[in-house]
Amino acid sequence: MSQNFKSKKVSPFRPFYPKGWAGLFAVVSLLSVSCTNKQETRTIKTEKNFPSADLARYVDPMIGTAKMGHTYPGATVPFGSIQLSPDTDTIPYAVDGKYNPDVYKYCAGYQYDDKTIVGFSHTHFSGTGHSDLGDFLIMPTTGKLQLNPGTADKPQNGYRSAFSHDTETAEPAYYSVQLEDYDIKAELTASSRVGMHQYTFPESDEAHIVLDLMAGIYNYDEKNVWTFVRVENDTLVTGFRQTNGWARTRKVYFAMSFSKPFVKYGQANYDDNVYKGFWRKFDQEENFPEMAGEKLRTYFDFKTGKDEKIKIKFAISPVSTEGALANMKAEIPHWDFEQVKKEGRELWNKELNKAVVETTSEEDMVNFYTAMYHAFLGPTEYMDVDGKYRGLDMNIHQTKDFTNYTSFSLWDTYRALHPLFNLMQTERNADMVQSMLAHYDQSVHPMLPVWSHYANENWCMIGYHSVSVIADAIVKGNADFDAEHALEACVQTARTRYYDGLQYYLDMGYVPEDKNGASVSKTLEYAYDDWAIAQAAKKLGKEDIYQEFIKRSENYKNVYDKASGFMRPKLSDGSFKKEFDPLDTHGQGFIEGNSWNYSLYVPHDPATMITMMGGKERFSERLDSLFTMELPDKYFEKTEDISREGIIGNYVHGNEPSHHVVYLYNWTDTPWKSQDKIRMILKRMYQTGEDGLGGNDDFGQMSAWYIFSAFGFYPVAPGSEDYALGSPAVKHANIHLENGNMLEIVAENQSEKNVFVEKVEFNGESLKEPFLKHGDILKGGKLTFYMTDKPNKELYK
Amino acid sequence: MSQNFKSKKVSPFRPFYPKGWAGLFAVVSLLSVSCTNKQETRTIKTEKNFPSADLARYVDPMIGTAKMGHTYPGATVPFGSIQLSPDTDTIPYAVDGKYNPDVYKYCAGYQYDDKTIVGFSHTHFSGTGHSDLGDFLIMPTTGKLQLNPGTADKPQNGYRSAFSHDTETAEPAYYSVQLEDYDIKAELTASSRVGMHQYTFPESDEAHIVLDLMAGIYNYDEKNVWTFVRVENDTLVTGFRQTNGWARTRKVYFAMSFSKPFVKYGQANYDDNVYKGFWRKFDQEENFPEMAGEKLRTYFDFKTGKDEKIKIKFAISPVSTEGALANMKAEIPHWDFEQVKKEGRELWNKELNKAVVETTSEEDMVNFYTAMYHAFLGPTEYMDVDGKYRGLDMNIHQTKDFTNYTSFSLWDTYRALHPLFNLMQTERNADMVQSMLAHYDQSVHPMLPVWSHYANENWCMIGYHSVSVIADAIVKGNADFDAEHALEACVQTARTRYYDGLQYYLDMGYVPEDKNGASVSKTLEYAYDDWAIAQAAKKLGKEDIYQEFIKRSENYKNVYDKASGFMRPKLSDGSFKKEFDPLDTHGQGFIEGNSWNYSLYVPHDPATMITMMGGKERFSERLDSLFTMELPDKYFEKTEDISREGIIGNYVHGNEPSHHVVYLYNWTDTPWKSQDKIRMILKRMYQTGEDGLGGNDDFGQMSAWYIFSAFGFYPVAPGSEDYALGSPAVKHANIHLENGNMLEIVAENQSEKNVFVEKVEFNGESLKEPFLKHGDILKGGKLTFYMTDKPNKELYK
Repeated sequence: MSQNFKSKKVSPFRPFYPKGWAGLFAVVSLLSVSCTNKQETRTIKTEKNFPSADLARYVDPMIGTAKMGHTYPGATVPFGSIQLSPDTDTIPYAVDGKYNPDVYKYCAGYQYDDKTIVGFSHTHFSGTGHSDLGDFLIMPTTGKLQLNPGTADKPQNGYRSAFSHDTETAEPAYYSVQLEDYDIKAELTASSRVGMHQYTFPESDEAHIVLDLMAGIYNYDEKNVWTFVRVENDTLVTGFRQTNGWARTRKVYFAMSFSKPFVKYGQANYDDNVYKGFWRKFDQEENFPEMAGEKLRTYFDFKTGKDEKIKIKFAISPVSTEGALANMKAEIPHWDFEQVKKEGRELWNKELNKAVVETTSEEDMVNFYTAMYHAFLGPTEYMDVDGKYRGLDMNIHQTKDFTNYTSFSLWDTYRALHPLFNLMQTERNADMVQSMLAHYDQSVHPMLPVWSHYANENWCMIGYHSVSVIADAIVKGNADFDAEHALEACVQTARTRYYDGLQYYLDMGYVPEDKNGASVSKTLEYAYDDWAIAQAAKKLGKEDIYQEFIKRSENYKNVYDKASGFMRPKLSDGSFKKEFDPLDTHGQGFIEGNSWNYSLYVPHDPATMITMMGGKERFSERLDSLFTMELPDKYFEKTEDISREGIIGNYVHGNEPSHHVVYLYNWTDTPWKSQDKIRMILKRMYQTGEDGLGGNDDFGQMSAWYIFSAFGFYPVAPGSEDYALGSPAVKHANIHLENGNMLEIVAENQSEKNVFVEKVEFNGESLKEPFLKHGDILKGGKLTFYMTDKPNKELYK
Repeated sequence: MSQNFKSKKVSPFRPFYPKGWAGLFAVVSLLSVSCTNKQETRTIKTEKNFPSADLARYVDPMIGTAKMGHTYPGATVPFGSIQLSPDTDTIPYAVDGKYNPDVYKYCAGYQYDDKTIVGFSHTHFSGTGHSDLGDFLIMPTTGKLQLNPGTADKPQNGYRSAFSHDTETAEPAYYSVQLEDYDIKAELTASSRVGMHQYTFPESDEAHIVLDLMAGIYNYDEKNVWTFVRVENDTLVTGFRQTNGWARTRKVYFAMSFSKPFVKYGQANYDDNVYKGFWRKFDQEENFPEMAGEKLRTYFDFKTGKDEKIKIKFAISPVSTEGALANMKAEIPHWDFEQVKKEGRELWNKELNKAVVETTSEEDMVNFYTAMYHAFLGPTEYMDVDGKYRGLDMNIHQTKDFTNYTSFSLWDTYRALHPLFNLMQTERNADMVQSMLAHYDQSVHPMLPVWSHYANENWCMIGYHSVSVIADAIVKGNADFDAEHALEACVQTARTRYYDGLQYYLDMGYVPEDKNGASVSKTLEYAYDDWAIAQAAKKLGKEDIYQEFIKRSENYKNVYDKASGFMRPKLSDGSFKKEFDPLDTHGQGFIEGNSWNYSLYVPHDPATMITMMGGKERFSERLDSLFTMELPDKYFEKTEDISREGIIGNYVHGNEPSHHVVYLYNWTDTPWKSQDKIRMILKRMYQTGEDGLGGNDDFGQMSAWYIFSAFGFYPVAPGSEDYALGSPAVKHANIHLENGNMLEIVAENQSEKNVFVEKVEFNGESLKEPFLKHGDILKGGKLTFYMTDKPNKELYK
């Protein structure tokens, strides 16, 4: 599994793991011990500067870069605007007019099995199920100038280069690889808005740095609407790229600074339909400082000595080239690559140290901190250092009192990632809500974001899960924003009749499948979202809104088919659709899930759902079946988005709708049944190595599931104060909350075999219910699980 | 000729002309008489509020709308950002992959002979020799919705409508026409940044207003890079259009407000290659408020009662939709169409009253004030009401102390239009120089504008004539800008080696034809420009710069072929090109002119040129030949840009390089020879009626020639204080200068036959030389020409 882990690394920061378990995690153990020893009262206060061990060494950015993980290995800082990472192929959206399914593999630009690197671009999504970005690809080369990237099968025909994983290093805020075709060592690091490149060249009279403005992820060379480049002087280049991709009207500005003056530069313009009226008045191909078009590739030439380093600072801005330049000056005013790399790692350590954990294995440390790393990649900062950013209305806005974020993969992240932020990134989460409200204020509908990135709504997936994020923040008291306005935004969003079948849902209580596809998924998720709005309304004392939405939240009942015992698509005449296969993911009224999984999606009212489905005993058995039944291959073949490994029985962990399911045992009389399954999921779905993830990481949602479950609890229904208890995977954890308090988690007798919980104590008192309140955690305290290898069927009784 | 003049007009503002000459211009005569009577001293001071007669009634915007005039008939205010005008066809740039020469006819969107109007768009150049703009075409229709414009031969297949000139009215700041297909009366007016439409509908349940985002002048439906539309509410729409046309990277924002809520709206999207990922999630074709793409057409539906008026305010901005909205609120905060129309006319009258003239015929009044109108159409204001505008670097800039202008057709306008501004629009001209300096400051080369519009340099034509405009302003003391910085910009521009053959000119003293085409024209114009820089340097006391550039200004001598007596293309080996036809305009080393005309282009040193060409007598005869020789048709056929009527003998008035030529007689012993020719040119090249212009008006340059020549003097070499005297066409003129002084021009015994000048007096003193100094005019005074029907060959002796 952990091929990557075993490969030779050259990084000085690579962790050295001594053999055997005993001395493995001495530093961390000592730290956590010192914390627990210092405290005598129940509430464990952290010091202002809590321990900051080099936890970054446990992070392996290569995890998920093979198969369907859709993560990228490149350099970035926590929630940073820049994700500077290698891209390994040039995939067109369509081949001979037909959709090219391979395009999906390249959501993050990099596929571990590829043999060549095309170049290093500055923006990447992490783990998403759709793609975009890949802006401003840079590639250093030597020898005869080549301006086309070449193809995977004929790499020599282009500027791409062969590489080997043996020379590759990926760490938080640092990536390095040897470009074999050119004998160039490439190193990347980043601050939030500036990517820094360091290329160590051989001696060459023909050293080039290619800036390919055509390159991009998803629809490789057809996505540009316009690009614009100015060579300001012999070390500075500015410009922008405007694309029509997943984001329809997207524009990113840049400023690119070289550590050494180039001696020559030029462009190739591949445009057919672009006006070139006075093109011939100059030699615009060489040393002409103004370039523009849909299809530009540019190059900058140098003469290099042996081992000469050429560095590039590449800043981006959503506002202007002026903004990009100011970002560069503010964030990296010098040329010290090592300093930027060090500061980036420090930023990561600061975030990673919010949970100082101890696990029973080396792999688990890597899995845990890589999950933390993936969880803290996004949403990403989206504004200049002066607080200006482009809004959904394409006007420039100025933030006053918050950091503006973008890239909200909300159908995924409302489930556990934003709840995780409410625990460990409270300030950022409140700012993310402010960013969502700014989106709402700029929206013409107006609606809160569905799936938004870079001043665009891409409308991906279903529901209006912003309301869940907002309700969770309000209910958990992390509402450092205008909560009344936020509630108003939720209500307005949920009343947008023309949105995705909502008019039918409002008029009939369900979305009819003959009017709008994936109708059951929509009905179920709208019902949950409505419940979330009701919770926020309740907390804010808005009784009428509470009543309206708590009533709407019962709509899940309208798509329940008592006869089959499944949620089932209903037609507009009120009858259930006749042809129906609860194992099939396609054409059955669901999206990214079959009825077997999706029928359990009533996270806000499991008790009623369980009664509706025949009572606790029958429901508990039903859950058992989900994990043990065999899903015939013909069904898997149609399952979107996940590897075969992303499925356990018929339980699909790789897609999100089942993420709460294993915790539903807590609403039966058999909460113990969840425990071994949680540990199994943690073990099977999250492994080290490039192919370690069971499916798309989904911008941190999969990782957030890991982190919560490893702690031993999970937010089944965001918008509720309650966490459902499970079975922790850590031995010990100190969670440093932003309010200064600390939650200590201890798993006594923790081991690979001891996956069951004998007893749980919170601050020394035995818990009688399998739930824990967020408010109690906020006060700080100690949560002790007593682990065992046999289920305690009397637990919580 | 004056068909338009004779056609029936419905406007209440149309002038009524009584029969016969006697009482014709009573108002104006009285005004001018009252002025002259009031004054007893030589210097005639104007009152603060000098007479403001309704001179707008003499303006006929239809002049030049047929054939090659390239003017537009629509509504605009002086130097206004909005030019709201009908477009009469939809001409693609290429047909079956081949350039479509008809595209050239539509530089201003309107051709008088066309039978249909496609719609009304908001931006138009006046009289240019290349095209762009035509943004945001609006068309009101009734009946079945049609979203494509249809074609001229099958108008019924589209939304275009038949119209008749009988129902058409064109006045300063007002245009009206009956759209016959729909029984809709269309009326247009404008403030600087806001166009106002008023459509009087019949009773209809199917009334539509089409906003065609695809439409545009030049490359009708292929120029869009991107368009973006938001329906903010049921009366307000915002968005932008980004094009790649003559301007490579051009973006105009808009805000469109309806006087009545629409009941429905929608779009058609004709894009092939544009991502439509979640297009099907909504019905985006109807009532979906966010639209974007390359090829959008939108519509807004109404129910109308009989004669119901629907009004539209349409604001534009170079900055943002926010900026457009602010412009709308600031300029037209109400819905009173008549008020806007009235204010627009008042703005025109204010400008037209700067010259209160009396002529000998009705037609001449129309010709004069239409020339004033055309001269004051551009450059156009290019900034929001708050002073923000998009710069050449695509960043947003803020003007501090000047109005920013755009659309500098400098190869044309440096000759007489900017000198006219230095006389009659001094403040605006200084601001135009500031705008050119802002362009320079934002330029990456850096260079002053060559032909710039809308934050783009389109590099059209040759030379660097910004320097002439700047030098003329400095020399004439109209330098309310940083003159030293301006000189620096001139020098830097003139040293940009990679610009259009300049490296050869700098190294060899001429542009070699084998290295760079139109080499003689370039050499001659660079030499003149260099002289202009020298004049500015002299005035500012920069001796070294003066020396450098006065030397460069002699380079015209390097392309003079003594053997043939013509300026002739030279090769890089120093020899003259062998094949050479001084009558041919093509492939001979010239652009928009043959050697016969261009050989006379040494405006800055006519005396030396005349000596070089054989002395005064021979030169005088040479000029005679120019006007009398016959130019065989085979040469005319190749002559660009002008009607057959634009040529007198071999003198080509329709193109600019000869504009100074007739005044060159003043440097011979036969200045009287210019007089009848000037009057002939005025008569033949400027006539009433839609086909009254002999060629493109060239953004006012042709009109400026008319105005100066009608006054009786002309700026042969901008950058010099001297005007060359000719033969006035007016009977009387009061020119109200911005410094409060007035120049009175009197032509005693003026008549159609009395085209010669017997005597000229300035402030009562007889002039001994055929020149007048700008500085003397500035002081105010009276210039009296005594007209006669026979040449006075002893004049100025």
